[in-house]
Amino acid sequence: MERTNVGIVGMGTVGAGVARLLLDQGDRTARHAGRTLWLKRVVVNDVAKLRDVELPEGLLTNDLMTILNDPDITVVAQLIGGLEPARTIMLQLLESGKDIVTANKALLAEHGPELFDRARELGRSIAFEASVAGGIPIITNISQCLSANQIESLRGILNGTSNFIVSQMEDRGADYSAAVAEAQKRGFAEADPTMDVDGTDAAQKLAILAHLAFGARVHWSEIPRVGIDTLDPADLRYAKELGYRIKLLAIAQLDGLLELHVSPTLVQIGQPLAEVREAYNALSVVGDAVGRVFFHGLGAGQMPTASAVVADLIDTAVGRTGLTFQTLQLWSKQEARVTMGEHSSVPGRYYLRFTVDDTPGVLAEITGVLGRHQISIASVIQHEADGQIVPLVIMTHTATEGAAAAAVTEIDQLACSRQPSVRMRVLD
Amino acid sequence: MERTNVGIVGMGTVGAGVARLLLDQGDRTARHAGRTLWLKRVVVNDVAKLRDVELPEGLLTNDLMTILNDPDITVVAQLIGGLEPARTIMLQLLESGKDIVTANKALLAEHGPELFDRARELGRSIAFEASVAGGIPIITNISQCLSANQIESLRGILNGTSNFIVSQMEDRGADYSAAVAEAQKRGFAEADPTMDVDGTDAAQKLAILAHLAFGARVHWSEIPRVGIDTLDPADLRYAKELGYRIKLLAIAQLDGLLELHVSPTLVQIGQPLAEVREAYNALSVVGDAVGRVFFHGLGAGQMPTASAVVADLIDTAVGRTGLTFQTLQLWSKQEARVTMGEHSSVPGRYYLRFTVDDTPGVLAEITGVLGRHQISIASVIQHEADGQIVPLVIMTHTATEGAAAAAVTEIDQLACSRQPSVRMRVLD
Repeated sequence: MERTNVGIVGMGTVGAGVARLLLDQGDRTARHAGRTLWLKRVVVNDVAKLRDVELPEGLLTNDLMTILNDPDITVVAQLIGGLEPARTIMLQLLESGKDIVTANKALLAEHGPELFDRARELGRSIAFEASVAGGIPIITNISQCLSANQIESLRGILNGTSNFIVSQMEDRGADYSAAVAEAQKRGFAEADPTMDVDGTDAAQKLAILAHLAFGARVHWSEIPRVGIDTLDPADLRYAKELGYRIKLLAIAQLDGLLELHVSPTLVQIGQPLAEVREAYNALSVVGDAVGRVFFHGLGAGQMPTASAVVADLIDTAVGRTGLTFQTLQLWSKQEARVTMGEHSSVPGRYYLRFTVDDTPGVLAEITGVLGRHQISIASVIQHEADGQIVPLVIMTHTATEGAAAAAVTEIDQLACSRQPSVRMRVLD
Repeated sequence: MERTNVGIVGMGTVGAGVARLLLDQGDRTARHAGRTLWLKRVVVNDVAKLRDVELPEGLLTNDLMTILNDPDITVVAQLIGGLEPARTIMLQLLESGKDIVTANKALLAEHGPELFDRARELGRSIAFEASVAGGIPIITNISQCLSANQIESLRGILNGTSNFIVSQMEDRGADYSAAVAEAQKRGFAEADPTMDVDGTDAAQKLAILAHLAFGARVHWSEIPRVGIDTLDPADLRYAKELGYRIKLLAIAQLDGLLELHVSPTLVQIGQPLAEVREAYNALSVVGDAVGRVFFHGLGAGQMPTASAVVADLIDTAVGRTGLTFQTLQLWSKQEARVTMGEHSSVPGRYYLRFTVDDTPGVLAEITGVLGRHQISIASVIQHEADGQIVPLVIMTHTATEGAAAAAVTEIDQLACSRQPSVRMRVLD
């Protein structure tokens, strides 16, 4: 049987999972690839470090040149996180003739154009299924399985850490910091979870999907984003009372113009996205031919991510990745196929919570401001106050993002307003 | 730009959808394929028949030879239903050097070994994404995206007609025949829906998935199957009272041995499969690395199915299908990679409904029989009777299929038993 020699650079959690699949499941990968995938070299920083996979003698080294200078190694799983040295190593690997498989979403979101252009120039490929939604094969599904469609919308729960934290807050009534601590204890959040909880990670993944599905040329940092790090348990309770759950959604909507954003959003209970619990990820994709397709699975973790990396290694060894890569024009110098819309003109329904003085005329004053901004009200919750200050929850009919933002800013400046108000989108 | 000439044989609903995508969305297919997909010929039985797509002059013919003898046409969407002449035409197409895309699941389930062997001998490919679950790209997901996994189980709602009928019965309290009439009126059921409602269609799809995911060599007719055509609205009501919905599930479970069956099954409300409504399809797939991945989408209909066919046409034109086809060994003469288990030894929980005399000692008599068959009881519903006959609903703990069947047969022969009892599996 023919053999494809594989290298791994970086042996963290995912790398160990990939090595384990390659070493323990050789029959399986060979059957699917029609050739042996032979793990020939693993490059790490520190060869002495203990790892949760047993590697055969002589595989492990800290010398990248053993891969770069070995023409027999044709495919490399580049599993180093962060931007540098990951970027430099990827360029070196491409220049030495390797096809790449990577899970590094931050690197692609930041340096995609440079890396993909270089790969195309060199006739090489970069596969990146594991970079978005872990075990859910959303990259292949969008770029290949749904290729007969114009994708019209994507709605995703793409950050498992955030979803776990919000689920904890909802199910156990935990406040934000207690939920973060629980997520850290259970291994679902890093010591510094900032990039996960502030929407950065989801925005980076959304940027990759937007390039793929819409031919957008947007940089992740241009995507308006709000995280869950300021979420108040009170809003989870009000949402539930209204029949909703709050989820950190990454949304792409094509409606002539393309609109992208990441934000905590109210999703009606019973809708599939509302029922995504714990650290799971999910995507709801609408194509003009296929209609709505919904995907749900583990978005992170050693073996789900390794599953995606090894599928990419097989695709690359078989030759499918090379064929796909040529047609994708991903992050190419070609012009964007789509024009970005103004975030402020995007329509949507809103959940608003005001904290106001419990005095006569306040409701009239607030609804007056909303009315002047052409925002009509769908429902109101005001429970009896147990003090001088009362929370007022309003669900609006469809308004623009700009009008909703302006109205809330104006209301926050009223004398009756006692705390900055809360504004969240409601999924249609 | 290079051009791949495409033929279509058969212009029913799906064929018209495929033609529309190829004719109207040429830019889109060209972008994904890196070449133009050019619809060069459409072969039908009756050229005079009115169709819901406008074809350019000269495309339509009733002469298959115009495709067989045209070496420029390299890929053909073979969209004739049924076994003959579909089988003969497919062999002719392969022999004249065409790669095939098909949606004909019955043909593959019946003649897969012959057709796939012939395609391999001739160095051609057969793509069949549209044959199972319509718009859900389950074939590519199993054979490519999840290729790093040993699939451990598949649970699918694969027949949209049955799901629509059961949803109608549940939501509207309709009886079976009224629900069938509604499904026919809305275009979700054919004039003769037998193959859909008796489990045949789901078993054929399950056979295809079992070949793909487990290397099974099972013929669909060997798969134990029960349809929804004898479903009683009373059981939907009892199931709901117990917190379940009834779904026609196609199940493959690998537990050393492989077990396959199709049957109405109680699924706990809140579980994703329980929430699949109307004519939707869904699959829950467990892989040993990826964990559980859930897919939901339209399992039939013109454009969802056309979406799958055109994705296959693109994959075939790009060359991906050829690469995949070589490694799949699907329906090959190779031995099965898996041994089939005995249906009777499969463990499971059961919903049992007995219709019995409302006399003292009956509950003891029935539970006595269950006990002798080592079947222990999880819960019982017996409402007050309004006559001499009373329904008795029992949920069991885990028992084998064989023990449950034997116990029910024995109970049906008791003097107190007034109607054949109902026995359905409960999903764990």
